[in-house]
Amino acid sequence: MSVIEEIRKKLKSENLDAYVVAHGNRYIGQDILPSEHKLQKLCGFTGSAGIAVITENTAYLLVDGRYELQARQETDSQEIEVMDLLPRFKNVCDLLKTFGTVNVGYDAWCHSAAEMEFIKRRYFDMKFHDVGDWLDCGLNNQIEVMERGLEFSGQSRAQKVAVIQNMLKDQQADYYLFTSADSVSWLLNIYAGDLPCSPVVRTYALAAKNGEVFLYGDNLKTDLPSGNWEDFSERLAKLGEVKLMYDAHNAPEKIKAFVEDETKLIKAPDICQMLKAEKNEVELKGMIDCHIRDGVALSKFLCWLEENYHGKTELDAVAELHKFRSEQKYFWGESFNTIAGFAENGAVVHYQPSEKTNKELKDDSLLLLDSGGQYLDGTTDVTRTIVLGKPSKEMIRDFTLVLQAHIALATAHFPVGTSGMKLDILARRPLWQNGLDYKHGTGHGVACFGNVHEGPISISANGSDYGFKSNMVVSDEPGVYKENEYGIRTENLLYTTESEHRGFLKFNILTKVPIDKRLIDKYMLQSGEQMWLNNYHQDVYNCLAPYMNEKEKMWLKDVCSPL
Amino acid sequence: MSVIEEIRKKLKSENLDAYVVAHGNRYIGQDILPSEHKLQKLCGFTGSAGIAVITENTAYLLVDGRYELQARQETDSQEIEVMDLLPRFKNVCDLLKTFGTVNVGYDAWCHSAAEMEFIKRRYFDMKFHDVGDWLDCGLNNQIEVMERGLEFSGQSRAQKVAVIQNMLKDQQADYYLFTSADSVSWLLNIYAGDLPCSPVVRTYALAAKNGEVFLYGDNLKTDLPSGNWEDFSERLAKLGEVKLMYDAHNAPEKIKAFVEDETKLIKAPDICQMLKAEKNEVELKGMIDCHIRDGVALSKFLCWLEENYHGKTELDAVAELHKFRSEQKYFWGESFNTIAGFAENGAVVHYQPSEKTNKELKDDSLLLLDSGGQYLDGTTDVTRTIVLGKPSKEMIRDFTLVLQAHIALATAHFPVGTSGMKLDILARRPLWQNGLDYKHGTGHGVACFGNVHEGPISISANGSDYGFKSNMVVSDEPGVYKENEYGIRTENLLYTTESEHRGFLKFNILTKVPIDKRLIDKYMLQSGEQMWLNNYHQDVYNCLAPYMNEKEKMWLKDVCSPL
Repeated sequence: MSVIEEIRKKLKSENLDAYVVAHGNRYIGQDILPSEHKLQKLCGFTGSAGIAVITENTAYLLVDGRYELQARQETDSQEIEVMDLLPRFKNVCDLLKTFGTVNVGYDAWCHSAAEMEFIKRRYFDMKFHDVGDWLDCGLNNQIEVMERGLEFSGQSRAQKVAVIQNMLKDQQADYYLFTSADSVSWLLNIYAGDLPCSPVVRTYALAAKNGEVFLYGDNLKTDLPSGNWEDFSERLAKLGEVKLMYDAHNAPEKIKAFVEDETKLIKAPDICQMLKAEKNEVELKGMIDCHIRDGVALSKFLCWLEENYHGKTELDAVAELHKFRSEQKYFWGESFNTIAGFAENGAVVHYQPSEKTNKELKDDSLLLLDSGGQYLDGTTDVTRTIVLGKPSKEMIRDFTLVLQAHIALATAHFPVGTSGMKLDILARRPLWQNGLDYKHGTGHGVACFGNVHEGPISISANGSDYGFKSNMVVSDEPGVYKENEYGIRTENLLYTTESEHRGFLKFNILTKVPIDKRLIDKYMLQSGEQMWLNNYHQDVYNCLAPYMNEKEKMWLKDVCSPL
Repeated sequence: MSVIEEIRKKLKSENLDAYVVAHGNRYIGQDILPSEHKLQKLCGFTGSAGIAVITENTAYLLVDGRYELQARQETDSQEIEVMDLLPRFKNVCDLLKTFGTVNVGYDAWCHSAAEMEFIKRRYFDMKFHDVGDWLDCGLNNQIEVMERGLEFSGQSRAQKVAVIQNMLKDQQADYYLFTSADSVSWLLNIYAGDLPCSPVVRTYALAAKNGEVFLYGDNLKTDLPSGNWEDFSERLAKLGEVKLMYDAHNAPEKIKAFVEDETKLIKAPDICQMLKAEKNEVELKGMIDCHIRDGVALSKFLCWLEENYHGKTELDAVAELHKFRSEQKYFWGESFNTIAGFAENGAVVHYQPSEKTNKELKDDSLLLLDSGGQYLDGTTDVTRTIVLGKPSKEMIRDFTLVLQAHIALATAHFPVGTSGMKLDILARRPLWQNGLDYKHGTGHGVACFGNVHEGPISISANGSDYGFKSNMVVSDEPGVYKENEYGIRTENLLYTTESEHRGFLKFNILTKVPIDKRLIDKYMLQSGEQMWLNNYHQDVYNCLAPYMNEKEKMWLKDVCSPL
């Protein structure tokens, strides 16, 4: 019996019309291990965002544009229908409403309090039943909590906790419950190794106004005061006459079930999310330093690739790139699974090569390579698109337009407090002028040795309206995808600083990796764009050359020479 | 006793803590006559947007950035404090809340149902009392309703009303109450002459599903079925078992008081607002034609000005420009009061010269001229900034940047459905790069022989998220304002059509008036920008030359010659 059939059986026995399967677990929005991937267990989909719903006769998987192709490739269309719809509970309910569905089962650990409040208010004629996780995808590994030194964090745990204490005092509250793993990790300067690509410690933290912080999670190995989920629910139940603050947008609805009197709960945005987005001087130095090491690794790889791609595959490239990164100081792991999409695989926006899809690298098409590293001093994320053999005119035109899109954002000055929602169009404009666009955001926030995607900032038309301040790190990654042909994306990480104009910010470039000049039509560039590229390459050469061998240095000099 | 003191007396006798004075009347968002200008009567402020509040000890006038300077000039700071705050009831309440105000008087005719619902929900601890208009600023003139022929409207009344009937049928409703004067005027192909700058007929229309339409307003002279406000309230009271649709965003809260059973009222966006934004072929032809005539008038004026400005004033310029426009076929009146701001007066964004502020035109500064005409076949709105004498380097730099900002928007291609909220930044970017910005939106919708500002589209960071379709008319008017020095703005009207790229729109230029080349630094322009300007001037010359005398033609040839 397939997993979907098993769920249908359970629907019947529980007298429900539908069961909703979220992608994540109680650490909403964080990475998960394959063993925790409920959608994969359900239908084979391995992407990092989605939501599914099973009814007696139907099954739907909702994914956004970047995962549409991949979801169709990975799932059985006879069993589950893939829909290009933002993977939101709301969109599931709209679907269910058309069937007249009434009784909907879901797992209250996997949906935020804010989302469920909205859902229950909006779909007041439907009934929602918290029936837990029917796919049995819990966290099983032990989580060893490690300490991150001041030389990397730049601010002590005591200093950070003091900010929380002040906030609690200001708000006349007693506790803040941090439910976001990246917030807790940043607050306490801790990290762990159970996730392959993110060092965050998957735990909640209950911070008291006296400065005590208590961790709650699965199988925590730590000297810090901690407990398991039973301890957690007991603690919440016994809170007494106190005020407990939490962020309804990243805390699961479930926590409300543990608190007898809901008036004790006060909604307030998770202050750590905002604080950690503004990198301190030590973090910024770490980010700059690790981007040089990461640039050395990726550039060495690109030099190697140029001579060795014949007979190699996408997976070979991923393995080789990993080797180069592993040799770098402070390397901890990849910051996400490397995307190495050759030719038409590059058009699948969040493609990751597998044994099943692995392509041999051949002449006359493009390799889209999106990868990044976690280093003890920072996190990287970089995309380069490389031509193997000879590019077509269309490839050169598209690559040049994507570069222009990239530069348009990278060179922007904008008033302090401008949101990424507004900036998004700057990168799209050069593509729109030519009838092109991309079905993903232009950029996302990046942590310093944490999640490669972090809030509250992003650069996306439908994204966050949180305004930029100084020292925020964000990606700039426009692209063009030609289905069944190739994909192009050029991504650097940027950080904001005050511009020379009072009240304005500008971007500075972190990423140091050559951009493939063989794919640039010089005559399409404005003089300012050409100057940008030449200056960038000069800087890349200066930063990386000292770490290259003679052969690599010659290669680097050539690929970084002026257009 | 001043008006403000009289209001304070009334506050006492009515046992209220505050009285709110809106700018408009029951035709929310429409132009008003000076005799109807409550804020002017209250404190002298003549701008077209604002809200005031009077308490026992304080008085505030809230205006947005574009009116800040003007409001300070026009009011007595001892009597009323001007605040640069968006003129919203909400912002008034936030102010009042800091004083602990409880009982607030207002006029339910002057605030939309949607706004008051929001206010009463949000400020549930305050009490709001509909006490009517304490400034006694009603509509007094007779309104003669005239018919607009098919040769201008392009669509008969019957055709338009049929669309409303279908909508009512679809929604299983009986009536739509149109409370927006521009909607009613468009729907019934009528116009009037009581407002100096807008031909809209200030009346409500109750459209029934059988196709009958009944007008309600002040002193209407018309053959169409009509009544006064007493008839209106009686009709609403006696509606019986029907469903009445209305737009809560442009209908006053007052109408709810006339309907016994509020469940009869159904909120639905005013469909005329959306329909009339998409110009039909006849309207578009009218807009194109009248822009040539308007361009002829303004260009003749500019030619005249160049030889005659010495010894003349801003008001002389306004009068002379009016003469040139009046000579044009189908001219009906100005579409708004001409802004002729010389030197530092140009920095007052919505400045209109008066006897008090009138400046003599002299050498070596800039004249900002924002004006427009109503023609039976269309509406224009154009801003040109002209140098008299010799410009400074800073003027040339600023003017060129504003031109680049203007071109950046005018040349944009964008997916169908993109909102002006997103496009706004395209015009700001060239200014932001140099630390400049402007405190107003980039563009507004424009009617065809109707309001020079019309919804639902606009191009503004905080504006409408209504998406662009084909055949919509919008202004493109970035600027730079240097307080106590000069103002620069360059404005053309544009209309959307499908671009050569499937699914994308582009703008086309309606306005035909030379842009002052003496203020352009050619070396700051990209080649594409220079080409845009030269093509534009070529087109302007071709369109206008046939209507110019020999002398004017020579002048035009010179000012339109390639850069």
